[in-house]
Amino acid sequence: MKGFAYLLVAVVALTGVVVYMAHASGRSEQEADPIFGITIPPGYRDWRLISVAHEEGNLNDLRALLGNDVAIKAYREGKLPFPEGTVIARIAWDYVPSEENNKVFGRAQSFVPGPAPDWYLQFMVKDSKKYAATGGWGYAQFNKDGKPADEAKLKTCFPCHEPIKARDFVFTRYAP
Amino acid sequence: MKGFAYLLVAVVALTGVVVYMAHASGRSEQEADPIFGITIPPGYRDWRLISVAHEEGNLNDLRALLGNDVAIKAYREGKLPFPEGTVIARIAWDYVPSEENNKVFGRAQSFVPGPAPDWYLQFMVKDSKKYAATGGWGYAQFNKDGKPADEAKLKTCFPCHEPIKARDFVFTRYAP
Repeated sequence: MKGFAYLLVAVVALTGVVVYMAHASGRSEQEADPIFGITIPPGYRDWRLISVAHEEGNLNDLRALLGNDVAIKAYREGKLPFPEGTVIARIAWDYVPSEENNKVFGRAQSFVPGPAPDWYLQFMVKDSKKYAATGGWGYAQFNKDGKPADEAKLKTCFPCHEPIKARDFVFTRYAP
Repeated sequence: MKGFAYLLVAVVALTGVVVYMAHASGRSEQEADPIFGITIPPGYRDWRLISVAHEEGNLNDLRALLGNDVAIKAYREGKLPFPEGTVIARIAWDYVPSEENNKVFGRAQSFVPGPAPDWYLQFMVKDSKKYAATGGWGYAQFNKDGKPADEAKLKTCFPCHEPIKARDFVFTRYAP
């Protein structure tokens, strides 16, 4: 029985690891953001959609904004400032033409998600006390391997969001 | 007490209506698609994200693809053909520049969802028997008022999806 118990523990432990890795899209490490201490929220890819966007210029990406339950509720009720515990996730993919779609349409009109850029994942986490110095929000960015952006990069987040203070530092509007 | 009971019934009835309308994004009517008999699935806006895209040309929209639980499971497992009960939702918005974002970035680089075009909502519903004549999929389109597209328009769906038969007539790939 003792051997069986050890086996069971081992299986549970392994299963736990497998489930965890699946949630974090295959990332086994969970290195925290070096300024705000944020790690990738498990299950963020299952969150509901806030909106989508295309950024041109140096970014040239297609992006989706997802929100945890607190975020979605606040958005739908038009509540500002966002409540404590709000987390907004931003996933970006390289903006690439879809050859297979364009073949069907007979012209180059379809642009779809391509590979993950360095700014693949970004999160804004609302904690008014912890992040008082940056408008009540912590900021995080991870590449596709789960590696967080460095301090220099993360220091650019708040200055860029500051002009949108009237909407609690959040650029994205809800797309109905 | 009788008056109170009537009041309660009235409140419950009204609340039911309000909840229903909220789910259908304010649409009170639920007119069915004239060919496939599809109505707007309640709660589709809460479904998980499959992918995003930008279509240029005559469409010129930003779009999000959402899937019901059957769809998301099949996509993540790479299962083809899609199982019975799969529903894929496509929401489209006019592709418009974000003046407020561009002001912050100092250049015209940000494109976001604008008003709803006529092809605001589209659904693909998998029912191999019911929709055997169109590859096992029913197709539906609704404008922002919940009005379904006419027969002539709906007859163009399957011919356009037919070239992508190898992927069970579904253009969109899952964006990780």
